[in-house]
Amino acid sequence: MTSQKPIAVFDSGVGGLTVLKALRTALPGQNFIYLGDTARLPYGSKNPKTIRAYLEQCLDFLMQFDPQGFVVACNSASTQVRESTWQDRPLINVIDPVVHTACELSQNKKIGVIGTRATVNSHVFQDRIKKIDPQIEVFEVPCPLFVPLAEEGWIDDPITNLIAYRYLAPLIQQNIDTLVLGCTHYPILKIAIQKAMGNQTDLLEAGPIIAEVLKHLIQKSQLTPTSQGDLQMFLTDRSPHLDQWARQLLSLPTEFEMNWVHLNKS
Amino acid sequence: MTSQKPIAVFDSGVGGLTVLKALRTALPGQNFIYLGDTARLPYGSKNPKTIRAYLEQCLDFLMQFDPQGFVVACNSASTQVRESTWQDRPLINVIDPVVHTACELSQNKKIGVIGTRATVNSHVFQDRIKKIDPQIEVFEVPCPLFVPLAEEGWIDDPITNLIAYRYLAPLIQQNIDTLVLGCTHYPILKIAIQKAMGNQTDLLEAGPIIAEVLKHLIQKSQLTPTSQGDLQMFLTDRSPHLDQWARQLLSLPTEFEMNWVHLNKS
Repeated sequence: MTSQKPIAVFDSGVGGLTVLKALRTALPGQNFIYLGDTARLPYGSKNPKTIRAYLEQCLDFLMQFDPQGFVVACNSASTQVRESTWQDRPLINVIDPVVHTACELSQNKKIGVIGTRATVNSHVFQDRIKKIDPQIEVFEVPCPLFVPLAEEGWIDDPITNLIAYRYLAPLIQQNIDTLVLGCTHYPILKIAIQKAMGNQTDLLEAGPIIAEVLKHLIQKSQLTPTSQGDLQMFLTDRSPHLDQWARQLLSLPTEFEMNWVHLNKS
Repeated sequence: MTSQKPIAVFDSGVGGLTVLKALRTALPGQNFIYLGDTARLPYGSKNPKTIRAYLEQCLDFLMQFDPQGFVVACNSASTQVRESTWQDRPLINVIDPVVHTACELSQNKKIGVIGTRATVNSHVFQDRIKKIDPQIEVFEVPCPLFVPLAEEGWIDDPITNLIAYRYLAPLIQQNIDTLVLGCTHYPILKIAIQKAMGNQTDLLEAGPIIAEVLKHLIQKSQLTPTSQGDLQMFLTDRSPHLDQWARQLLSLPTEFEMNWVHLNKS
């Protein structure tokens, strides 16, 4: 009998849904459970201890569904993940697999990283890339308007193109060949970002890379494939806008029920 | 002997600094103390009970400086202010005085309100305007990109102008004659907003209106004028970007010391 245990995906909000979407596309039979801590977002501006406490609370909440593994689909929370298992189940963060792929892909050893101001100020991508290959030059640029632009749904939009050109101009000047989208919202603006960077630059987003990690773990029998393709979603705060945004991004049917959960404040 | 007790100004972050700036311009001798709860922003997406609890915690913190009065310079926190005094000192919220001014000013009884998505969804301005004059038509539009644009400092900027035109087009169509800037960040983008609306529309921002309220309270001896023009600032989280932003907005000298305070999480 095949276990139908879900894989748990966690984010501070709804950005991680781009990761979930990529995982469901790559592994259509897999069961997933998603928790978005929308009541306490953004994590980026909070201090590391607080982020770690929130992360543990969210993982504890997800444990009641007996998941076979965890994906921390939030860059800020991923900075506070030091382990590769949680309660003996695989725990995958959203930074390390992307960093490894970027180091493998870059030919000219010039990698760009874009993210929120908090992610860029933490230099987490730069530090982890340099650890693998100190020769690689890393250019980090914060793009604070990209999250609200993605949440506005201004995707194929001249305003978004203009803003992308402005943010990315320094990276074009540095002639990077690989660009890490270091925020889970950014894949939504991929068209505008690619347009600004030109087709010579590889854009790396977490979703498809994490999907490969999961496939690898399934091959190694550290995760079990499931066949139902079920999805359960939990958010910690009611927001009609984010609810609608999630439904649209994941193409959920109208009758799909969103669940709300109140996590202990701490 | 003149009391030199400060007036305390509180915001969930740094938007309230536009209010503080207007108060210091109008009352240059007055002493102020400012608290920005940057660690827990944004308040808008939190539930009313949490916002009220944070508000009370912040007012309690400010009480140790024995202020002669309080200004809640945050729209989300103001929605949870039900009293006009706190520990027998005047407590001024940022919504009611603006609502009263808008109702007095509007000739054609068509008022626009712009704010964050949370403020607009709460309909707090619409409800309070309608309470004063049910005949007035209120048109509310959320402008989620305005806060990050203000924090980016993209003030006199073609991108900001384009975004302002897009957000405000429905209000221009409705022929409103008065526009409430229902978010304390928005006065920073006043030039772009006025350009989009045209000169026939009165823009109402909280700062100068609250300054008039304070002057009125001084006339009625409910507040005491001071002569030093001192300022003390507290933020609940360290953010180099917001620190710099605050210094620039208030034209603070380099040697001005920002204070950091850790409020109890709850």
